[in-house]
Amino acid sequence: MTIVENHYGKSRVRVARLVRQQDRHELNEMTVAIQLEGDFQSSYTAGDNRLTIATDTMKNTVYALAKDPAVAQPESFGLLLARHFLDANPHVTRATIEVLEHPWHRHGHFSFIAGGSQCRVARIDVSREKTVVESGITGYVLLKTTGSGFEGYIKDRYTTLKETSDRILATSIDATWRYDNENISWGASWHAVMKLITDTFAEHDSKSVQHTVYAIGEVVLAHCPNIDQIRLTMPNKHYLPVNLEPFGLDNPNEVFCPTDEPHGLIEAVLSR
Amino acid sequence: MTIVENHYGKSRVRVARLVRQQDRHELNEMTVAIQLEGDFQSSYTAGDNRLTIATDTMKNTVYALAKDPAVAQPESFGLLLARHFLDANPHVTRATIEVLEHPWHRHGHFSFIAGGSQCRVARIDVSREKTVVESGITGYVLLKTTGSGFEGYIKDRYTTLKETSDRILATSIDATWRYDNENISWGASWHAVMKLITDTFAEHDSKSVQHTVYAIGEVVLAHCPNIDQIRLTMPNKHYLPVNLEPFGLDNPNEVFCPTDEPHGLIEAVLSR
Amino acid sequence: MTIVENHYGKSRVRVARLVRQQDRHELNEMTVAIQLEGDFQSSYTAGDNRLTIATDTMKNTVYALAKDPAVAQPESFGLLLARHFLDANPHVTRATIEVLEHPWHRHGHFSFIAGGSQCRVARIDVSREKTVVESGITGYVLLKTTGSGFEGYIKDRYTTLKETSDRILATSIDATWRYDNENISWGASWHAVMKLITDTFAEHDSKSVQHTVYAIGEVVLAHCPNIDQIRLTMPNKHYLPVNLEPFGLDNPNEVFCPTDEPHGLIEAVLSR
Amino acid sequence: MTIVENHYGKSRVRVARLVRQQDRHELNEMTVAIQLEGDFQSSYTAGDNRLTIATDTMKNTVYALAKDPAVAQPESFGLLLARHFLDANPHVTRATIEVLEHPWHRHGHFSFIAGGSQCRVARIDVSREKTVVESGITGYVLLKTTGSGFEGYIKDRYTTLKETSDRILATSIDATWRYDNENISWGASWHAVMKLITDTFAEHDSKSVQHTVYAIGEVVLAHCPNIDQIRLTMPNKHYLPVNLEPFGLDNPNEVFCPTDEPHGLIEAVLSR
Repeated sequence: MTIVENHYGKSRVRVARLVRQQDRHELNEMTVAIQLEGDFQSSYTAGDNRLTIATDTMKNTVYALAKDPAVAQPESFGLLLARHFLDANPHVTRATIEVLEHPWHRHGHFSFIAGGSQCRVARIDVSREKTVVESGITGYVLLKTTGSGFEGYIKDRYTTLKETSDRILATSIDATWRYDNENISWGASWHAVMKLITDTFAEHDSKSVQHTVYAIGEVVLAHCPNIDQIRLTMPNKHYLPVNLEPFGLDNPNEVFCPTDEPHGLIEAVLSR
Repeated sequence: MTIVENHYGKSRVRVARLVRQQDRHELNEMTVAIQLEGDFQSSYTAGDNRLTIATDTMKNTVYALAKDPAVAQPESFGLLLARHFLDANPHVTRATIEVLEHPWHRHGHFSFIAGGSQCRVARIDVSREKTVVESGITGYVLLKTTGSGFEGYIKDRYTTLKETSDRILATSIDATWRYDNENISWGASWHAVMKLITDTFAEHDSKSVQHTVYAIGEVVLAHCPNIDQIRLTMPNKHYLPVNLEPFGLDNPNEVFCPTDEPHGLIEAVLSR
Repeated sequence: MTIVENHYGKSRVRVARLVRQQDRHELNEMTVAIQLEGDFQSSYTAGDNRLTIATDTMKNTVYALAKDPAVAQPESFGLLLARHFLDANPHVTRATIEVLEHPWHRHGHFSFIAGGSQCRVARIDVSREKTVVESGITGYVLLKTTGSGFEGYIKDRYTTLKETSDRILATSIDATWRYDNENISWGASWHAVMKLITDTFAEHDSKSVQHTVYAIGEVVLAHCPNIDQIRLTMPNKHYLPVNLEPFGLDNPNEVFCPTDEPHGLIEAVLSR
Repeated sequence: MTIVENHYGKSRVRVARLVRQQDRHELNEMTVAIQLEGDFQSSYTAGDNRLTIATDTMKNTVYALAKDPAVAQPESFGLLLARHFLDANPHVTRATIEVLEHPWHRHGHFSFIAGGSQCRVARIDVSREKTVVESGITGYVLLKTTGSGFEGYIKDRYTTLKETSDRILATSIDATWRYDNENISWGASWHAVMKLITDTFAEHDSKSVQHTVYAIGEVVLAHCPNIDQIRLTMPNKHYLPVNLEPFGLDNPNEVFCPTDEPHGLIEAVLSR
């Protein structure tokens, strides 16, 4: 028997960091997940913990390193954490860090309103050989009320869907894009990509979710020379037109029933 | 054996309503719950459904009435629904309607970004004798980084909490306020109350969550003559300062661990 | 302005208690919520905490009292907690305790498998004048594949539902029953009521959810002389027969689409 | 720009299937997810849907094929679905099907009680070249009250965890095991593996979660010649001993605080 793959770590480490300036506080709230790979075989096969870094220690490390200014961007905080584990532990070969940043909108100098369900995310993958930084968004819910259709698809014996040239298109975008270097202004770049995603979703004349996925990926790669790959996952959150005929009413795309299940799910990775 | 209390209805009826103007679409998305009281005894005791309005019919009624312009405000849509059931069914004595409105932020003429987890809510309670309209918010998450303390409380044998004159205060507000009449500009009034809640939370010098609850209620009743009662439920979403001493670091209120459980829970109803 | 109602406390206090016998361990895992009423006005109006029991102290009290053998039953643990707060604090007038017990099924002397989503619940309401003990269940999901119909209901302009004499009936029962005294064998009584609920659901010839609600309440009150009231909340978790005709197939009640929303919701309180 | 990877399909297709025998009904309830790969490039790049199978059609296919006796086992139902899509669509190169089976425990001939949160799962991956069948479990929550320790790990500057030779070990197992052929009695094999997992968890003298992961994998591979690989993901759902010293009480591993976050997360793939 062989261990084909193994990694372990700590998930859902929540930390908030306050920078207390005289007349204004900065707030960063994150949920961190750490996974390590390395020479951990004997902990599995023999229960020998001599090379095991306790996951409780990983949690403490997140708290302690949260004092570092790198905490201000999820990408730089993730890099700091990943390198700490590799530098401090010669037997660790790879550290994967996910940092979710929870959105808080400022309301005054010392007060904040929680943002939506979407989180900015950074995924950092550092080994002895290379470093990969991905930025992204999770749970970004968008809806457009026109400029979307779905026609011309295969009709087989199980097809009942009606073609439409005008429907509501709603989705919850998970996107991660990969940088080809680390000399990036993380915050500015993230906001620029988010604007491209949001505007393209709104303005694209969509023939399907697949079509929109590609349009978004194309725009991001075209405008961001430092990004060499983007992964997009977009469910189709169906808004079904309600049949009002039984009640003697017409429904010219005015009344819809939003549904969560079942839903379409489209995923693609685009690369240069 | 007697039936002391009974009501029934349909919950989680989701409906979206589009108003399609030439160069701009208006979108309202709601989740509606309906509960009816009335002469339904025999459906319970004898399985006699002759006076039973099927909950499926209630769902259809939501869809059909969503064509009405009243749908633009959750309060007026709730009133329309409640009165429909009372008018159409002499044996119904009371209709209680809850309308949750899901927040969508406009991004262009035909495109929207989902708002936060908070929902605007209307609770409509109409009987043959009277009508009660409540407006409110659910899941409104606020945080302040200073201007909050907790000191001078009872110390008993189970008390270990340290007093503090400066802490993070975070909460998820559920609030409903009751109007004393129906001649209200629902949307304008809702936004005015939300601003009072948000500003008071931010600016009040808080000695406890209780203290903040009261301050918010006081301001709302003072500024809104048409509101005669407000209910506020505010959990204390604790941000615990992390003890960094074991790592040779100080923590002057900079690094916190946000927690969901356990949490304090404070509720009060204030009235004129 | 007056405070019409106020209470506060600690929610989601999780505690597990192990009784370590030589060759067998007993495990109780609970989630406790505490709410107190009393002379707390000045904490709201003036931020004066001199009579405030910190919710953190409430949490500690749960941990400390979990050493008591009363922890073995949620009802007796809730009574212990409620009386502690009233005895230790003359200014507290009422303590309401909810204890959810998480189901663990034994697998060997020292090992357990988590049960379903349903939780046994006790709700204890103790004031200076009286004590009310309620036991119950939350999230108890049952389904029957026959012996349920829905016919003869009102047909109005919004009715499209087809009558059926044979459907799947599925629900998630929340039930609480009130005892008229405290000299109850809590565990035995709870299991007896659960058996009555389960068997009645299975065996009753149901004309509607309302009809089943009443049948269950009637049986419980008839068989349990110490119970004087029962509250039942039963959603109708619809299993919709799928129309297979477009595919040239019949569907004699064989293939269903289970749905969560919208759902019927029926609630009644039955009393002697 | 190139599409490095793309697949799409329908998720959360819920279906229940009843087999109506004279004096007994069989019930299977499943949630199905379908993902297809193939010649779909032009739907992304040009919005050309001529080769697109609508996800709505996939949903209908699940309903229609649920009439087949293969529905009785998630593995055989998944295989049926995967092969349908490949057979009917020459341009589809790969179909991946996930079938979650929801646990219902029989209570009488026509009545059922919902089981726990754990679901039996089958993952079917069929391409033109090969077929891979994996069976598994998701969300299987186990706890043991002794026979688990954690000692001898690395102590660095961020380590505060105390070593223990006796702790509560709790986890929520996600496991999938891969078969090397299809001539398997799916139900019997699944139950046999589940018994091995459950018994090994209970009886193994655990030096860490890693140690337990390996022990479970080793036993399954040793006893099941048709299984050539197993993936195990096991969070460490920490039960933290409560410090009762401030209250003048000792706590010899009797009172614990169960927590969900942060949690350890251990994952390994074991193969012959």
